[in-house]
Amino acid sequence: MITSTSNQKVKELLQLQKKSRARNQEGVFVAEGSRMVGETPEKSLVRLYVSETYYRKHEQELKKYGAQPEVLTDSVFAHVSDTKSPQGILAVVRQMSYTMEEIAGQKNPHILVLDNLQDPGNLGTIFRTAEAAGVTGILLSRDCVDIYNPKTIRSTMGAVYRMPFLYMDDMMEGIAYLKNKNIRVYAAHLEGKNSYDKEDYCCGTAFLIGNEGNGLRPEVAEKADVWVRIPMEGQAESLNAAVAAALLMFEVSRQRRG
Amino acid sequence: MITSTSNQKVKELLQLQKKSRARNQEGVFVAEGSRMVGETPEKSLVRLYVSETYYRKHEQELKKYGAQPEVLTDSVFAHVSDTKSPQGILAVVRQMSYTMEEIAGQKNPHILVLDNLQDPGNLGTIFRTAEAAGVTGILLSRDCVDIYNPKTIRSTMGAVYRMPFLYMDDMMEGIAYLKNKNIRVYAAHLEGKNSYDKEDYCCGTAFLIGNEGNGLRPEVAEKADVWVRIPMEGQAESLNAAVAAALLMFEVSRQRRG
Repeated sequence: MITSTSNQKVKELLQLQKKSRARNQEGVFVAEGSRMVGETPEKSLVRLYVSETYYRKHEQELKKYGAQPEVLTDSVFAHVSDTKSPQGILAVVRQMSYTMEEIAGQKNPHILVLDNLQDPGNLGTIFRTAEAAGVTGILLSRDCVDIYNPKTIRSTMGAVYRMPFLYMDDMMEGIAYLKNKNIRVYAAHLEGKNSYDKEDYCCGTAFLIGNEGNGLRPEVAEKADVWVRIPMEGQAESLNAAVAAALLMFEVSRQRRG
Repeated sequence: MITSTSNQKVKELLQLQKKSRARNQEGVFVAEGSRMVGETPEKSLVRLYVSETYYRKHEQELKKYGAQPEVLTDSVFAHVSDTKSPQGILAVVRQMSYTMEEIAGQKNPHILVLDNLQDPGNLGTIFRTAEAAGVTGILLSRDCVDIYNPKTIRSTMGAVYRMPFLYMDDMMEGIAYLKNKNIRVYAAHLEGKNSYDKEDYCCGTAFLIGNEGNGLRPEVAEKADVWVRIPMEGQAESLNAAVAAALLMFEVSRQRRG
């Protein structure tokens, strides 16, 4: 049992929780809580950590993971946890890896392209919603918040394990690839002329979603085939990015269900 | 200028930021940032506080508020601010007060009923989205998170000033009032038989939205006229509460726009 916060493994865990650089260097991330750990694919599980109390309560159940869990005292576990009320279980998990082909190569793909999204909770919620809406994959500009941020991972509610995604070094190249595949590219834009629910999304569809405060960068927006807007009443100037993305994704889902 | 964190006004401000009890006792809340303060109706503004730096930069502009701002040193302002990077302006604002008649008395009202919602960001996002979707008012069970929580207020992006709302001591009585007005009451429920987009929302419509983790309480759900579900693909078990509410509200908006 690990009893000290100065233990080397504990120090490494803290780095993985806090620094995207440490995560990328090791090619792993931290999934916390019994739900997230339970949904981790077996082949992706690298190491398992539990608190002393969790271990006592769930010793039998833990055998399903194959890997022998490392036990931390409750206070050391609280020290490495990213949450205020730790559940007592976390896993170090191998990062995912997808190709553009996996994201955009299916018939009539339904794709999100995220431009400089900054809020960890928003990004996680978008992944969670995208899975439910039948999205085939998510492309992210390199300057988006890290999908492996602990708060983002929690907000995905497990969708991070199932939704193909790819960070693009060159956003313009990524959009060009989609257009080349005859995928229609829509920019969600406050100045869009067409209402989002008047378009036909039955063929390959991609939505460009911009930053929470500033929207899409002009050079990204101008690459779209069509600008669409979400009609708004009252004095509302914009919608939360995850809400706007949800409305677009579920309009596709609604049309495709027929 | 207030230079000390032990100043009585500073202590009171901190209480208003942190404790719903202090807010309710005074009948006020704190709106922070130039956008939120700028959208505060003049009659609701009780006191204005700015940091020294903000005052120097915006002295002329501050005259529009009528009230003489109280200036705090930058470090005292940071002490009372609820944000990590304070903008340097906050207002103490009178709490709003609405009647059931204002929320449900219009022609074909469009109402949200929130049951035990707990996440401050979710509640604020729901207010922001509701304004954009043309919702006429929001009813909240008494055990919902406080709308005057500083994080909630920020997430509303000003909608809190424009969206009528009412905390109900008796949720069942509130729902009975709606039904008595011939408003059709829909429960957003994972076990709903009808898909949310197959209903007709052109007449008076109310949606019951449940707690983030547990959904609607059974005794609340059973009061609904119809249970509707949002069709989900993949292994997604549920949607974020603010996302689910957004999809329902904007389906009403879509149908009413025709």
